Amino acid sequence: MRVYDIIIKKRNGKSLTKEEIDLVIKGYISGNIPDYQMSALLMCIYFNGMDKKELKYFTESMKNSGKVLDLSSIDKPKVDKHSTGGVGDGVSISLAPLVASFDVVVPMISGRGLGHTGGTLDKLESIPGFRVNLTEQEFINQLKKIGVAIIGQTEDLVPADKKIYALRDTTATVDSIPLIAASIMSKKLAEGTDALLLDVKTGNGAFMEKFEDSYNLAKTMVEIGKNFNKKIKALITDMNQPLGEYVGNALEIYQAIKILKNEGPKDITELVVYEATKMLQLAGVEKNFEKAKSKVLSKLSSGEALEKFRQMIEFQKGNPKIVENPKLLPQAQYCEPLVSHKSGFISYINTKSVGIACCILGAGREKIEDKIDYSVGLRMVKKLNDYVEKNEPLMYVYYNDKIKFEKAKELLISSYKISSKKTKSLKLVYKEIG
Amino acid sequence: MRVYDIIIKKRNGKSLTKEEIDLVIKGYISGNIPDYQMSALLMCIYFNGMDKKELKYFTESMKNSGKVLDLSSIDKPKVDKHSTGGVGDGVSISLAPLVASFDVVVPMISGRGLGHTGGTLDKLESIPGFRVNLTEQEFINQLKKIGVAIIGQTEDLVPADKKIYALRDTTATVDSIPLIAASIMSKKLAEGTDALLLDVKTGNGAFMEKFEDSYNLAKTMVEIGKNFNKKIKALITDMNQPLGEYVGNALEIYQAIKILKNEGPKDITELVVYEATKMLQLAGVEKNFEKAKSKVLSKLSSGEALEKFRQMIEFQKGNPKIVENPKLLPQAQYCEPLVSHKSGFISYINTKSVGIACCILGAGREKIEDKIDYSVGLRMVKKLNDYVEKNEPLMYVYYNDKIKFEKAKELLISSYKISSKKTKSLKLVYKEIG
Repeated sequence: MRVYDIIIKKRNGKSLTKEEIDLVIKGYISGNIPDYQMSALLMCIYFNGMDKKELKYFTESMKNSGKVLDLSSIDKPKVDKHSTGGVGDGVSISLAPLVASFDVVVPMISGRGLGHTGGTLDKLESIPGFRVNLTEQEFINQLKKIGVAIIGQTEDLVPADKKIYALRDTTATVDSIPLIAASIMSKKLAEGTDALLLDVKTGNGAFMEKFEDSYNLAKTMVEIGKNFNKKIKALITDMNQPLGEYVGNALEIYQAIKILKNEGPKDITELVVYEATKMLQLAGVEKNFEKAKSKVLSKLSSGEALEKFRQMIEFQKGNPKIVENPKLLPQAQYCEPLVSHKSGFISYINTKSVGIACCILGAGREKIEDKIDYSVGLRMVKKLNDYVEKNEPLMYVYYNDKIKFEKAKELLISSYKISSKKTKSLKLVYKEIG
Repeated sequence: MRVYDIIIKKRNGKSLTKEEIDLVIKGYISGNIPDYQMSALLMCIYFNGMDKKELKYFTESMKNSGKVLDLSSIDKPKVDKHSTGGVGDGVSISLAPLVASFDVVVPMISGRGLGHTGGTLDKLESIPGFRVNLTEQEFINQLKKIGVAIIGQTEDLVPADKKIYALRDTTATVDSIPLIAASIMSKKLAEGTDALLLDVKTGNGAFMEKFEDSYNLAKTMVEIGKNFNKKIKALITDMNQPLGEYVGNALEIYQAIKILKNEGPKDITELVVYEATKMLQLAGVEKNFEKAKSKVLSKLSSGEALEKFRQMIEFQKGNPKIVENPKLLPQAQYCEPLVSHKSGFISYINTKSVGIACCILGAGREKIEDKIDYSVGLRMVKKLNDYVEKNEPLMYVYYNDKIKFEKAKELLISSYKISSKKTKSLKLVYKEIG
């Protein structure tokens, strides 16, 4: 069996066997298969897809390319959540401690900002002292003690994905649903949790803009999860405007505290509560939706969820005082309103551009080596279908650099459409799969 | 403009511009574009093809990657022929001197055996002393003096094709009609001839087995040629059995001499005469087919064509005495008949297997560094639809190595089907394009 024949087979639309897929993944990791053959094969997968069996083999082979976490010493239900990423999507920060305030463990391995989207790890690192690089033992110990930890991917978790992703990134094979699904699921399976909630974003600020694509990705990931006997569910949620009121790093930590105090913005709080409820159902804590939801809400009003967040910060060496005094988070020097040039309803927000504007301010990276400015970002005071008067603020911009501000401002203004009519009302959750 | 964006564009089925294609070819040759991006792009071309404009730009950019021959100092019509290759396809050897025996120049740049097919250069090198590596100046001088030369591709002719072909060969992107067409035509255009006859083989011994594929390839190459104002015509000819009576290197030289003496096997002689006639028409020597054909036949009977072959051998330092005394060509030690196991009509010959059997005998290479045994090969005494008695010879096998002979024999026997009924009668030329 030669790689050449495997490429031809996939190119001709046939299904690869487990042996063929293992040979490819192992050969690529070991350097026996050169990049140019792997990129040809990835392009064949882009064009011809993978069937359910192939996807199972591919995901499994990726997962087994490195270390698989063993959480079997923790005898509580272990449930995680993964979002495909968006603008203002700071859900995980409040969701993880909220769920962990029940008798459930949330071992969350998160990512950094990618493109125009923010990353949970970057946001958490805006908390002075916060560590995201725990050892496996530290991770497990913390989970045993307080039931929650949010950390970065370790070096030896799914190394095949790192190498393949870097190649996809330069050969235009990123936006392939089976490859995305296998990449996400191999990492989530290597975490060793029992249950997983997927939040697949759709809309102009998501990586998958079209509902159909988001739906296919969600369905594909749920199928993979089921093939591995995971309790799994996917939500397709809206990303046609930034989620919540704040976009940025420290600003989204501030917002998470507000959510955990039950004082958060309506949309993101609703989504956090909804996802927490679904995770409790998946974990088997409470099967009835309404009962689960009411329990979740009581954890917010009782302060237990906020206390869990404080514990997590403390365990991960961050300054827990930010919970009581958010002014201890990095603060931007300047804050300026961005006003509407005319009166009317906000009928469209180019969410991707809003995300890029935040990166320009310094909230995200353009190159891997760029340093993040944790303090900058946006406070969106008007959202889709809100009425705005001429010269009334659409948002406030937090910034430190006037030149970056001017550049971001221009992009932000051009991201909004103000009309005499409202747009169709948007749902928060479009569909549930699994 | 980044290569990444060019890959995405082609992947999404859009047409590349001249600038984009030039950037790709130049960047790849210079090493700025890595193999893994080029192979991804080639796979996109495999899946999405290229339109007429793209193909023109691609071919032109390949052609211009190296030196383009300048034959303008030769003031006669210059016409070449290219075959896509088959088994027993020694047409060029007699065709080139036959056409050059008119007031026409035939500057032929040929290839070596590839896979199961033989190569004109290998066949010519079976003539003791024959040189195929002429310098450009030697080539032009010879063309001026005797009107014909058959040489190998020089190092600086279309270097982009060499590098891209090597990559295609390992990434399963060889059998793409636009890539094959651009590869052949870039080399033929770099030769600087006025007119070109293409012989596109179809059938079980051709690289393109299906008529439809051969037709598409022929049509694509003719379109490219016309875009470059070449006089061009393509024939789609049969390769469902070896052409002529002999398959091998020295054996096909021997057959070429017989053809030039008008004593050759019916099918290949007919094809040589037909192609010569078409080339004379393309060159503008004689527009009327019947008149041209009768002139061609008279060059065979007069001995002028054979004399031109003798001259060519002499000019290229081969031993011209082989023309009078073919025993001076390399001779195999053994010759054994291969007999039929039953009586009936030959209804099928697996031509590719026959070609592979010849390679096993030593007539072709398995690896680039393999040395060819010029003397070995086959004499096919029975062909498709011939009746054969049980134990009557199908062919004679010329060989030097008994182990190789046994291996080849087994494959050869299994390549024939003997039936009570004839198969449908095969044409020599299926279609003419341009």
